[in-house]
Order: sequence, then C-alpha cells, then structure tokens
Amino acid sequence: MGSERDGTRAYRRAADYVAAALIFLRDNVLLREPLRREHLKPRLLGHWGSCPGITLVYAALNTLVRERGTDVLLVTGPGHGAPANHANLWLEGTHEDYDPALARDGSGLRELARRYCAPDGFPSHLSPAVPGTIHEGGELGYALSTAFGAAFDAPDRLVACIVGDGEAETGPTAGAWHSTKFLDPATGGAVLPVLHLNGYKISSPTLFATMTDAELTALFRGYGWDPRIVDVTADPGGDPVADAVLDAHTAITGIQRRARAGDPDERPAWPMIVLRSLKGQGAPHRVGGERIEGTFHAHQVPLAGVHEDDEQLAALEAWLRSYRPEELFDEDGRPRPHVLAACPAGERRIGMRPAGDGGRLRRPLDLPPPEPYAVAVPGGPGTATASPTRVLAGWLTEVMRRTEESRDFRIMSPDELASNKLDEVLGASGRAYTWPVHGYAEDLSRGGRVMEVLSEHTCQGWLQGYLQTGRHGLFPTYEAFAPVVDSMLNQYAKWLKMSHEVPWRTPVSSLTYLLTSEGWRQEHNGYSHQGPGFIDNLLTKKSTVTGVYLPPDANTLLVTMERLLADTGRINLVAAGKHPAAQWLDLDAARRHCAAGASTWRWASTNGGEDPELVLACAGGIPTVETLAAAHLLRGDLPAARIRVVNVVDLCALAPPDRHPHGMADAEFRDLFGTDTHVVFGFHGYPAAVHQLLHGRPRPDRFHVRGYVEEGTTTTPHDLLVANGVSRHDLAVTALRHLRGHSAAADLAASYGRRRDRLRAEIRRTGADPAEITEWRWQP
Amino acid sequence: MGSERDGTRAYRRAADYVAAALIFLRDNVLLREPLRREHLKPRLLGHWGSCPGITLVYAALNTLVRERGTDVLLVTGPGHGAPANHANLWLEGTHEDYDPALARDGSGLRELARRYCAPDGFPSHLSPAVPGTIHEGGELGYALSTAFGAAFDAPDRLVACIVGDGEAETGPTAGAWHSTKFLDPATGGAVLPVLHLNGYKISSPTLFATMTDAELTALFRGYGWDPRIVDVTADPGGDPVADAVLDAHTAITGIQRRARAGDPDERPAWPMIVLRSLKGQGAPHRVGGERIEGTFHAHQVPLAGVHEDDEQLAALEAWLRSYRPEELFDEDGRPRPHVLAACPAGERRIGMRPAGDGGRLRRPLDLPPPEPYAVAVPGGPGTATASPTRVLAGWLTEVMRRTEESRDFRIMSPDELASNKLDEVLGASGRAYTWPVHGYAEDLSRGGRVMEVLSEHTCQGWLQGYLQTGRHGLFPTYEAFAPVVDSMLNQYAKWLKMSHEVPWRTPVSSLTYLLTSEGWRQEHNGYSHQGPGFIDNLLTKKSTVTGVYLPPDANTLLVTMERLLADTGRINLVAAGKHPAAQWLDLDAARRHCAAGASTWRWASTNGGEDPELVLACAGGIPTVETLAAAHLLRGDLPAARIRVVNVVDLCALAPPDRHPHGMADAEFRDLFGTDTHVVFGFHGYPAAVHQLLHGRPRPDRFHVRGYVEEGTTTTPHDLLVANGVSRHDLAVTALRHLRGHSAAADLAASYGRRRDRLRAEIRRTGADPAEITEWRWQP
Repeated sequence: MGSERDGTRAYRRAADYVAAALIFLRDNVLLREPLRREHLKPRLLGHWGSCPGITLVYAALNTLVRERGTDVLLVTGPGHGAPANHANLWLEGTHEDYDPALARDGSGLRELARRYCAPDGFPSHLSPAVPGTIHEGGELGYALSTAFGAAFDAPDRLVACIVGDGEAETGPTAGAWHSTKFLDPATGGAVLPVLHLNGYKISSPTLFATMTDAELTALFRGYGWDPRIVDVTADPGGDPVADAVLDAHTAITGIQRRARAGDPDERPAWPMIVLRSLKGQGAPHRVGGERIEGTFHAHQVPLAGVHEDDEQLAALEAWLRSYRPEELFDEDGRPRPHVLAACPAGERRIGMRPAGDGGRLRRPLDLPPPEPYAVAVPGGPGTATASPTRVLAGWLTEVMRRTEESRDFRIMSPDELASNKLDEVLGASGRAYTWPVHGYAEDLSRGGRVMEVLSEHTCQGWLQGYLQTGRHGLFPTYEAFAPVVDSMLNQYAKWLKMSHEVPWRTPVSSLTYLLTSEGWRQEHNGYSHQGPGFIDNLLTKKSTVTGVYLPPDANTLLVTMERLLADTGRINLVAAGKHPAAQWLDLDAARRHCAAGASTWRWASTNGGEDPELVLACAGGIPTVETLAAAHLLRGDLPAARIRVVNVVDLCALAPPDRHPHGMADAEFRDLFGTDTHVVFGFHGYPAAVHQLLHGRPRPDRFHVRGYVEEGTTTTPHDLLVANGVSRHDLAVTALRHLRGHSAAADLAASYGRRRDRLRAEIRRTGADPAEITEWRWQP
Repeated sequence: MGSERDGTRAYRRAADYVAAALIFLRDNVLLREPLRREHLKPRLLGHWGSCPGITLVYAALNTLVRERGTDVLLVTGPGHGAPANHANLWLEGTHEDYDPALARDGSGLRELARRYCAPDGFPSHLSPAVPGTIHEGGELGYALSTAFGAAFDAPDRLVACIVGDGEAETGPTAGAWHSTKFLDPATGGAVLPVLHLNGYKISSPTLFATMTDAELTALFRGYGWDPRIVDVTADPGGDPVADAVLDAHTAITGIQRRARAGDPDERPAWPMIVLRSLKGQGAPHRVGGERIEGTFHAHQVPLAGVHEDDEQLAALEAWLRSYRPEELFDEDGRPRPHVLAACPAGERRIGMRPAGDGGRLRRPLDLPPPEPYAVAVPGGPGTATASPTRVLAGWLTEVMRRTEESRDFRIMSPDELASNKLDEVLGASGRAYTWPVHGYAEDLSRGGRVMEVLSEHTCQGWLQGYLQTGRHGLFPTYEAFAPVVDSMLNQYAKWLKMSHEVPWRTPVSSLTYLLTSEGWRQEHNGYSHQGPGFIDNLLTKKSTVTGVYLPPDANTLLVTMERLLADTGRINLVAAGKHPAAQWLDLDAARRHCAAGASTWRWASTNGGEDPELVLACAGGIPTVETLAAAHLLRGDLPAARIRVVNVVDLCALAPPDRHPHGMADAEFRDLFGTDTHVVFGFHGYPAAVHQLLHGRPRPDRFHVRGYVEEGTTTTPHDLLVANGVSRHDLAVTALRHLRGHSAAADLAASYGRRRDRLRAEIRRTGADPAEITEWRWQP
C-alpha cells in the first residue's frame, strides 16, 4: 500500500506531462528528440490552468479505489480541463479498452494527441465521447447538482465532483450546495465535492480565492457541510489530497452506516474538500516578463507565442522535460510499472464505471396501462370534465408504486406538485427531505422520491444526473418559469446530440418536462406568470433530440406520457392544464390522434370535414376549447360554411419532414390543411413558434396564427384570451374574414366583435367571467 | 420619538387590515356593517402569507426614515405580497399623491380594493404601476442583485431588500449574496437585506427555515455579512425589527464613514437581518380543522371557501375585526393621527423616492462622437482589417472617462472584458472589487466601474437595478451563455412593457447586450460555446421593447452602439465579432446603412444590384464575409448572372411593419428582395429566427436561410461553417440551384461542392484553415 501511495507522485507527473503534450504536440510526443517547431500543433487549443488540479483529485480518487474498492464516478465541473481527464484515462488504460488506437504506448499517445482538438477528434472540453463522463462542463454551474442526481438511489456510489472556483461564483452552484438536505444516506450514495481554488478565472482572481479559510469554513458549515481545507500551493510533501479523500470517505461511510442501521445523524454533515493549488501548477513561473504559473495567464494555453518566440519554445521544452518523461515511459512509450502502481485496474477504474454510460444500467420502466385512469366520454366529445394533471397523477402514482423496489423513478419539481394537482403521487412516495423539520409539514420523508426545491436549476441538474446514470424521471414545472433552465436545456440538448454520435454510448431515458400552471390560467398571479417561450427555445435545438406535445385533454395527456416515459435520448416538453376542462377523446381516439400527431376532428367539423372552405386548427388545451367554441358559433350562424377542425398534439408534425423527424409528409400536410385554404390557428404559445415551423410548407401566409402575444396581466381567464386575440369570438371573426362567398359573413363578424366587447365590459363590471363562458359546453 | 415608535404597532395593524381587505373585500371595506357575502370579491386573488412580514419591515424602515432621515428604497422580493405594499403606500399617502382617487379615506380605500386584482386594475403582484417599485418579484431570485444595482454609485441611498425564504432557495439569490465584495462603501450606497423566514413555500417548509440559527449565522458570516437574527414568531414586545434596522443602519454608516474618510474596513462586514416570523401572521390559527397561521396554508388566500362556508365567513370577519379597524380609521375612513405618527411625510416617504421612478434621475450620456475611433477604408470595402470589439473599446473608454464625475455608467460582464478585446476600457476604470486581493491581479480597483463576476444572473440583476434607478450600462457576454439569463430577460421585458403603460413612469436607459465570442469563432472551446438562441428568445418578446442588431463590421458597430447607449425603454441585443476582420463601410456609409436597417450593397452586386435574378442576403459579421466571398466567386465564374447583395443590420427590419415597429414597409421590402426572386440568406443565428420574421412577407419559401444548425464542435472556423452549410461554397451552391437559365450553373455548383469537400479534407490533414480561406480578401 505504501508503495502505491508513493507511486502517485510519478503518476501525477505522468498525467501532467501527457495533458501538456495533448495541448502542444503532434509529434515527438515523448520528447525523444529536442523539441522543434514542426512537433507543435499548428493551432494551440485547450486550457492548461485546471489540468494539474484535476489530476491531483483523480490520483487521490485512484488511491481511494485501490485501497478501499470504492465505486467512484467523477463529475468534472471544469470541463475545459479535459486534457487532464484524457491523460488519466490513457494512463489507466480506459482509452485503450474503448479504442485500441489509443493504446497505452507511444503510438497511442501520439494518436490521442492528434485527436485532441482536431476536427472530428476529441473536442477541447469533456464530451460524451470521453469514457466515464456524464457532464460536459462547458457552461459552468451545473456540476454539483448533476453529481447529486447521479448519487440519489445509488447507495454504493461515491460521486466525486470537482467544482472550479470560477464555477463556484455561479448562482446554480451556490444554490446546489443545499442538496445534502435532500440526500438520504440510507437509500442514496454520496457526493464528495472538491472545491478547487486555483485562484483565477480567465483574467481575474476568483472571489472564492479572496475568502479566508475562516470565511470558507463558516460558509460551508452554514450550508451544512463538514469542510476540510487542503493547501498544496507550496508542496507540503506526502499526498494530502489522497489523505483528505480517504478521511472524507471514512466520514461518509460512517454517516451511511449509521443511517442504514436505523440510527441516522440528525443533520448529516457530509465532508467536502476545499483544495487550494496554484493555477496551472507546473507551468513555467515566468516567461518573457509575464508571470504564468499561479496566475490567470495559465488559464488557457500558456506560451501561446511558441510558434514565433524562441524563448517560449525553450521554455516549453524545459517545462515538458521538467516532468522527466524518460523516467515515466519506457522505450515504446508505455508507462513504467511504478507510474501505474497507484492506478486501479479492470472495472474498478474510474473511467470504466458503467454509471459513466448510464444507458447500460437503465431498465425500461414497467409502465401501468392507462386504461384504468382514462376519462370516459360516453356522451361523446366534450361531455365529460376532468383536470388533465389530476388524471395523470393517478397513473403517475402507480408508476411511483411500481418503482418502489427498483427506486429508479423520481419527480423533480420546484415546489409545485400540490399546486399542479399532482399531489396524489405523494401518497405513494413523499417529498424527499433529510434535514429535521420541527414545524408543521405534510408528506415529507427521508427516502421520498418526489423532490421539491425552489430552484429550477437544482431540479434540472439533479434530473440530468439521475437520467445520465440510467434512471427515469419527470420535471413538472410552471410553464412561465421553465425558461429559468433554458441554458441548461441548451447544453443538455448538445450533450444528447453528441451522445448519439458516439457508437458505444447507450441511450438514456428522455428528459420530460411537464409544463403546468399554463399562462392562460395564471389567475392568482399576473403577467410574470405568463410565458410559453420554453417551446420556442426547445424548437431551436437539433430536431433529433426534441419533441413538443400539447395534449388537449386528459386522455391525450395519458397517452403522451405513456410514450414519453418509455422514450430515450430526447428532451420532450408537454404542456397541459390543471383545471377541470372538457374532455374530447376517449382513450382509443386519443391513441389514434397522438399516433398521427395531428388529425381532423370530424365530429367538430361541418360537412364531415370534407372539402373545407376554411380550416380551424388548434394546439393546446385552452385554444382547443376556444377553437371548438368558434366552430360551434359558426356552425350555428353560418351552417353552409364548410369548416374543418384540426387538432395538433405533436407540434413538430407541422414542420417539413426534412426539418424535423416528426414532420408530416407533404401529402399528409396537404390532406389536413390543403394548399391554399386559409387556416385560422388557435395556438397555446407564441405565434412565431408556428410561423417558423411552417416555413417551407405551401403558402404559409394563409395560416393566421392567434396565440400569446404578451398581453394581459391579473384578470379573468376569458379576459386574458380576449387581450391576446385568442377568444372564440376573435377566432370566429378571423375565420369570417377569410370565408369568401358567404354574404352574411361581414355582419356576423361585426356581431361577434360586439359580443366580445360586451363580454369584456361585463367582466370589468363584475370582476368575473360570465356564465356564457364558464358554462359553455360543446354540443354536437 | 417614543410616541412615534409606539405608533408603529397601530400602523402595522392598520396596514395588515388594509392588506387583508384588498384581498377579500369589494364593499364595506371598513367593516362598518356586519360582513356579508355581497361584500366579498367574486374571485379571491392574491397572497396573504408574506404580507404581515413585508409590513413589519416597511414599518421599521419608516422608523429609520423618521428618526434619521435616511434615503430608503425598498426592493420587495416576494412581489406577490403586493397587498402589503399597497397598504403601506395608501397609509403613507403616496397612492393619494399619485392618484387622488386613491385618497386616504374610505372612498379611496374602497377604490384601491376595487382595483386590486381587477381587470385593468393593479395586478396581483407588484408592478411598474406601484409607486416606489423597481422590481416585480414574480419570478423569484433577482431581488438581491437588483438591490445592489440600485445601490452602486448612489452613496446616500440605502436599499432595503426583502428576500423571501422561498426566493432564498434559488441559485441566483444564493450567488448574489457575494455582491458586497463588489460594493465600494466610499462611492456606493448600502444594501440592507432582510431574509424573511416565514418558514413555508406554497406547500412545504423552506429549507432555510430548517436551518438552525448557528447554521444561518455561519452561512452569512461565510459570505462576508454580519447577520442579526430577529425572531417575532412569539410576540417579543417592543419593536425588535425597527431596533435591528436602526442598529444595522448605525453599522452601515460606520462602514461608509470610515471608507469615505480614507480608512476603509479591509473586509467590510455589512449588516443583514434574518427575520423569523409566522407565515401569514395574524390570520386565523385554525379553521375547519386546518391550520392556517404559521403554515403554508396561509400562502395564498386563506379561507378560500368563504363564499360557500359560513364558518369561514365568520372566521374572516373575526380575523378582520381582530385589527380593530374602528380604532384605526375615523368616520370617513381616514387613518387616525396615532396610526400615522410613525409614518414619514413628503418626499421622504419610501414610495415617493425618485429612485423608484429612475427615469426621473436619468441624465442622457454625453456620448463621444465615433469619428476618431472609426476605421478608415480608403481603399474601398474590404480593404481594411480591424477587430470590431477592439475598435468599440476605444469609444467605450471615452464613455467611461466622460462619466468619471457623474459615475452613471457601468459595464457588467461575466469575466470577459479582456477575452473580448474590450480591455482598453480598464485603462479608464478598473474592475470593481472591494475585498482585499493578496495574490497576483490586474486592474482591480475599489471604485472601478467595470464589474466582472462569473454569474450572468448577478450581472443582469445588478444592471437592471442600475438602469432602473436612472443610470446607464452595457452587458458584454459570451453569446452562447447569454441564455443563462433568458428568464431574467423575459421578466425584464415584461417590466418594460408594463412601464410604458404607466403614465407617470419616466423611461429608463435601454439594456444593451453585447454578445461577443460568437459561436462561429469559439475555437478554444467547443460545442457548448456555440449557441445564438438569445436572439430567438428576444424575438418572442413584445416588439415595442426589443431590438436585434448584427453589425457586420467595426463602423456599423460604433454607429449601432452610439444609438443604443442613447436609447430608452428597450432591451437591445448586438452581436459582434472580436477577431480582426474585413471592414466594409466607412463611417458615413455605416450611418446610412444602420439608419436603413438593411440595404443593397451595390459595390458587391453585379449589374449595380439592379433587376436581380437572385439576392444574396446576409446578417452578422461571419456570414457577411461568406456571402461576399460567394458573391465574388459567382461574379468571377458566372459574370452574366445579375446578383444583388443585401446586408441586414437591424434584424427586425425583416418583420412586417404590423409585427415590429422596425419592420420595413412592404414597398421597401419589395425593393430589396423583390416578390418572387429567390433569396439565399447567410445568417448568424438559427434559420428559424429569420423564418419567423418573414411570416407574412410575400412568398417566404423563396428565402433559403443558411445559419447555425447545431453542428460542429472544436474545429477550425471554416470547418464549422462547412458543418453548418454556411460556407461560401455552400451559399454559392444554393444560389446556383436557384439561378435558372445559366447553362453553366449545374457544373459550377458541382465544382464548388468538390472545392468545399477538398478544403474540408485539407483541414483534416493539416488541422488548420487553408490560406485560401484565411487570406481571402474582397476584390472589387
């Protein structure tokens, strides 16, 4: 054991050498010859600053694995330190096991160096192509919450998480430190954060680096952690990082042992490590009058002028030789045995853990059939009333029950289950909370699998980590506040897209957002709670990883959810209402409709929907009601008009098939919408979302989309529709404008306009929606 | 003084009474008669839970104002507690001063109650219609950073900030506590946060409520604050909140006095207050078996069943009468003198401070003329080379110098000034940092007006607060990471839109984003650093508050910035490059081009741009280069083809004029793009952004938009263009596909395709862009 620990210094020298070589060299990668310019890469890309620190942690974790056999997954926040991860993966032989071209010898190292930052090679940052990796670390802030997601319900796993001091400045990271309050030591694994204080961001000191040890200790104790500060800025001898990791592991296993023996700590103070080291430790201290090591000048590529500057070339060679590569690698470039002595082997290697390719661990959910939960509509469309999310809650409760043993399904949400009528689920599994609660509370439970925290960022990070390690989940969240995680969605969509391009990656469960408390019914709140833009953001992503669903009633919601909780590799968004509303389709009809993505509702159309003069289209629960009400008005007042009603449940079906895989074939599109028929489209979100999807379809200017246009605030539901021009009367008036050849159309439009304005005035007088609206029901 | 302090209890009773009345009553608002159902509002909207706590703080601040004459601005994080703010504004007479219909008597109270949550009245939350308010508090997380923004460079101002314990769970709030490290006590004012622990979110305990006093104290000391915990859950007698506020103010003035005397504290430990109170304090303790006061059941409208349930009606009446309104208001409903004794008067009232309507304090910037900074292009378009952001930096440096006395211009950025070639500005004003830095650092300064923190959320909040209080600023940020603040932009756009609808609000400076490090040139990084979606998000907002600018070179960037730093009431986005690039327009031409929004570049067109067979359009610096290169290729190889080159600098000029105020008139649009000419459009962002703008223009399907389609990662700049189909050859091939009647077109397209593929292969061989690309220059 002693010799293994001694070996970590040689190991770290080797890893630092390899990381530097990846950034600079394309040839002579073992420095068997004097360094010449032609050995350098033409473009020097990458970031050196974090590399030595990442290796310090990696090597210490290797010691833990060797000495105690711990199951370690590493989440590297500073993903731009990827050269270090590659170096460690190459040294431990993971790279070789994934791809023999990256063998643990000189040719393999040369190939690794060639690929790093090359077109079609490994990108500058971590990516799905890097074994053992579940987090890219490009946009900062999400490493810590992701690590917690990987630890929930994985009692044997230790997720080490490097948090850079740049990343630590972000809000999402600052909020995620509270996650221990939700981690159950009995049923979950552990997260060991290493806050890596190397002192600098890209051109300034980090604010954590300006905090004293006393401030850091107070801060993390306040969060509930047990912080340990390790300072290696001056070489303290020994291997203090490994010592700290082993010590932390001892504390972790103690917390877990007590909890699993039924005697949990009241406020488990999990260990975390604050690691002070020099930025870019090992790089030249000063070259050409500029300080490098220990300053922000070491952040990216130090000695970036090496192609032109002889002093820099000499400094680079001296720097690389300072690691004494000839001691570390044999003639064939194989790491010598003493270098690898501290390195775990086989499946215990950090890069080889299956959680790093979580799809391998994933078991499809045993989903209950929706039949028992479906709403019956025996009287035909519109004759039953139900709250879509409340109906869904019944089915989700059974999903929760069926996963009680496997513990591989969680619901993450910003404190909204009850508000969104999903609280039946709490009967099957409580709200996870570990910290003691002395006051009044309902449905809290240490091992609960419903997670509510008022941070969309934390929910998203938790869920990403949970899904990436092979589990399942659902993210119900207020529609208007989902954009809080726009940028996390952006990055996760990139991760998924890249994952699909890596042959050995196994698909993980899709991430499903359930957008609730839709803006059309914000009621208790106001303008801030209106905002359907999450749809628009998702539509900018690669079409192979996205889906947008707007089920118009409870049964279509059930069918949609049944599909999405079995789906893999995508981000899917579902918007659904929580208020009691008319139910249109029985379960069979809902299945057919959802399978088609969009279809004609003949029962709501005149002339059976055939040969339409005009199409009334709709997507989303509330606009569907208004569209049907408009259809109803027109059928009564202008019975001769041939009007087809089309509902769209899979929004991307509107896109041309070359732009989205769900896009309807041209013929289907023509069958539904014709080629020059005017289409009045009642839409749940911003009209521009539909506008952009229609680009490339025949004559898109005949689509008159009425949706949310940022009008209205606290008022009645109907008044909000009127403010945005989406009320039944607005839709009917728009339709009449495009119904040629009906002499009554103009007068009728004027009368609808007056009716709309009278209702508006009545709402102002009474402060409530008129019975004409609230009690309206579809009548066949 | 003693009697004033005694008066606060009566004052608070009155404010609590009024707040409750606003939620429940439409008549009998002073309870002169027994409460009957017809006195109730038909729909009960609003949130009671936070109201008593807000009034506790408001009353304590009133004491501070009365006793010490302090200039207090209040930022209320829990904006749904608006009934309390309204109650205090009505009591202090601010409401009456703004609108005589809201007089301080029974009729005014009745009118206030009528308006609260009524259509066209005051919304449920705070809003710009509420005097003294700069923050809506609907989406949680941003109160604290906004408060700091209001305090910078306002040395006499104390910004009190109520942070709810729900809001405290958010990442953006957790990150914003570090803001003291950036606040200079010599040149800035103070922020006094009150963390309001009432224990519950909408249906669960808050995590801060489960923290012990020791944990809370440690946490905030760790952040650098001096926390004081005040517990009023059991009535402790006296006025401990006012005592704590006065005590905090004493500490604040001490910090300021020492700093202003040239002897600043090394680590100023600003006071903050942790206020523990009961959720919905004062509401019935228990009704119908359900606990209300002190639980989450008090969050929204307690007794929501009062319309149907007699027990609840009785409980409501008892609750309202428990405040003894008859003691508080005279026969006319005027608050009695002892109630108002603790209330400040005149301009010192919190609601009357001009910073609450910051446009009144705003002085337009004395902007320098751009002439001295403009790039000369004496040899004609494309003959000069410059880095657009570096050129801009010269002009911004002068803006910074000219505001040295007024201190009303700041740059907020997530650590990117140097990286984005804007660092010349640091010569005029350093990076603000107050905490001592012992290691290596450059350009830090306590009073600096460049603010770099690795948190887009914090930057955005700071800037919003700074602008809302009448100052100016700029937010340069990585294009790919701007979506981190998508949701803050959403909410701020709503704020601005509502502000425009409030007659007395004075416009504040527009918020200008400078998106730098554009995805097309991410180079050192990779796929995570590619993402132009901030444009798409801004396009979903109300067109009256948005602008999107894509200046193609340094001079157009200067002209654009000159316009935007003088602009008010909007959110403007500018994307510009930092790398040296060809310069197309001299300053005069740039002025004409920017004034038009889009125009034909005749010098780049064949046939002088007349009677085009095809239009090559472009928007954005990099696509403009590729488009000109494509035009150049085609001119050489197919000289007979009449090709017009159009550049778009104001993206919204593409929209129909009824959808965006910048939208070109139909005639102008036809003049530029014809009615059936094919248009190949090289675009900086996602093609869908252009697709949606074109909806409603004649035959949008003739626009073939080539933009970023989520392809590529770390590679060369040219390879990234090829991966996304935006390279010169891709544009030229697309053009040739639509250039009918040129027999050579097909062969030429094939040869361009081969050329593109050969370049791609060469890049793979060499790892760098070929000289053919890097040295290409436009030749007339």
